[in-house]
Amino acid sequence: MTRFWKGHGTGNDFVIVDRDSPLTPEQVRWLCHRRFGIGADGTLQALRAGDVDDWHGDPTLWFMDYRNADGTVAEMCGNGLRVFARYLVRTGRMTTTTADVATRAGVRHVRLHDDGDVSVTMGTVRVEPDDVTIEHHDTWWSAYKVDVGNPHAVVVTDHTTVSEISFDASPTWRPRSAFPDGVNVEFVEQIDQRTVAMRVHERGSGETMSCGTGTVAVAATMATRTGYRGPWTVYVPGGRVVVTLSPSGDGYQAVLTGPAVIVAAGQVDLPGE
Amino acid sequence: MTRFWKGHGTGNDFVIVDRDSPLTPEQVRWLCHRRFGIGADGTLQALRAGDVDDWHGDPTLWFMDYRNADGTVAEMCGNGLRVFARYLVRTGRMTTTTADVATRAGVRHVRLHDDGDVSVTMGTVRVEPDDVTIEHHDTWWSAYKVDVGNPHAVVVTDHTTVSEISFDASPTWRPRSAFPDGVNVEFVEQIDQRTVAMRVHERGSGETMSCGTGTVAVAATMATRTGYRGPWTVYVPGGRVVVTLSPSGDGYQAVLTGPAVIVAAGQVDLPGE
Repeated sequence: MTRFWKGHGTGNDFVIVDRDSPLTPEQVRWLCHRRFGIGADGTLQALRAGDVDDWHGDPTLWFMDYRNADGTVAEMCGNGLRVFARYLVRTGRMTTTTADVATRAGVRHVRLHDDGDVSVTMGTVRVEPDDVTIEHHDTWWSAYKVDVGNPHAVVVTDHTTVSEISFDASPTWRPRSAFPDGVNVEFVEQIDQRTVAMRVHERGSGETMSCGTGTVAVAATMATRTGYRGPWTVYVPGGRVVVTLSPSGDGYQAVLTGPAVIVAAGQVDLPGE
Repeated sequence: MTRFWKGHGTGNDFVIVDRDSPLTPEQVRWLCHRRFGIGADGTLQALRAGDVDDWHGDPTLWFMDYRNADGTVAEMCGNGLRVFARYLVRTGRMTTTTADVATRAGVRHVRLHDDGDVSVTMGTVRVEPDDVTIEHHDTWWSAYKVDVGNPHAVVVTDHTTVSEISFDASPTWRPRSAFPDGVNVEFVEQIDQRTVAMRVHERGSGETMSCGTGTVAVAATMATRTGYRGPWTVYVPGGRVVVTLSPSGDGYQAVLTGPAVIVAAGQVDLPGE
């Protein structure tokens, strides 16, 4: 039997397993299957950084081994890292309210707040100088091209509320060469001087309840448009997060703050064991 | 903290909670939410039949309190009853391999087999004398009208494999008066003299991995067509079940046999407690 936790950050959900050896892709797929297994967008596992082959930093850190539901390795996930920090505290692995955590995208800093929110550093975000065009449901929108380590196209909808957007089809973009590996598309509606509502279509997944890098891309876009660097309150379908930006080179360093909840804990029989 | 189990029967999945008082609809919806809660098609709970207001039979039986994911009360579920029997054994509530279980549809009999399968009695199934017509993707199909306590329309596809059926739209039927409350539609393909493959579109849910009454409706249809009363092996998207029929009045008494698996056990904090 393997100990597990299930938790989510703004509706982006994870199964966290308590063991030293990495899961097999088959075990990840089984754990994440929403009917035959437990069900999640991905798995998280705490490994000692010194035990991770490609890690060359501080070997005493906890390493977040994050896998997508399809069993593939993923670099980083802002919603996942918040839940991971909550798990580290719950299991006694972390006894302070701040810590560095090793991820495949490098060291990230986490901070637990008294109100249940968790802040995580998200690295650098850059709003590119060139606009792109998003075509969706026979409407053409001008979009900001934003790099958060992964590609985003952010549409600010001046005359449409984001609740009206339908994602029964996938958005496309011009020029096609702007995003050779696909793009995450955010539609954002400004609510007031420091608040936006957004919906996101993730490449490969379709609409999701929340996308950590998407909220950062949206905040950076709004900072570029308005000069206000936050805190930006960002409403996503799965809840509310806050993004703060500090200037750094030609971009910003971003901090994402939001809820992280462990909802259940238990024991599971993994296939193949 | 409330103890829970998660299990499934051919991909139809349930959260089973261990307590004496019924769940509130809000708690059911939360438990079944696949991202904010644990995730399931419905909840199961073992109550003493004598404690259930509308139960007038043997008060010492275990009563299966089954709720749909939307929080509403449901009468019976063949896949759920198999998982429920497995849970009764796992928790020491049932110490024999056969038992009567109280449900809102009356007493059902369960039997656990050595190979992990569980058999449950499904009550009476009747194939009506009048055909109906199913229209799906601009094709018209003649269908059997079958009553398993709930309404079914069974299409036997002579020249189409069921894997070719697309459920991106919902089937409709003629005459409209045949199913005033909607209908579950099965498409079935005969594999050999005692084996079929089926796919099911459940009213209100769309395509599902398995539908216990649907497999019974299909077996009864095949018995009517061929004279063979089973055991019929029925492949559904979520696995394989076996249906056996015995003549009874103008219909059959049906027994459904299939897998029932508990995959995880743990503790959960219910909202409002």
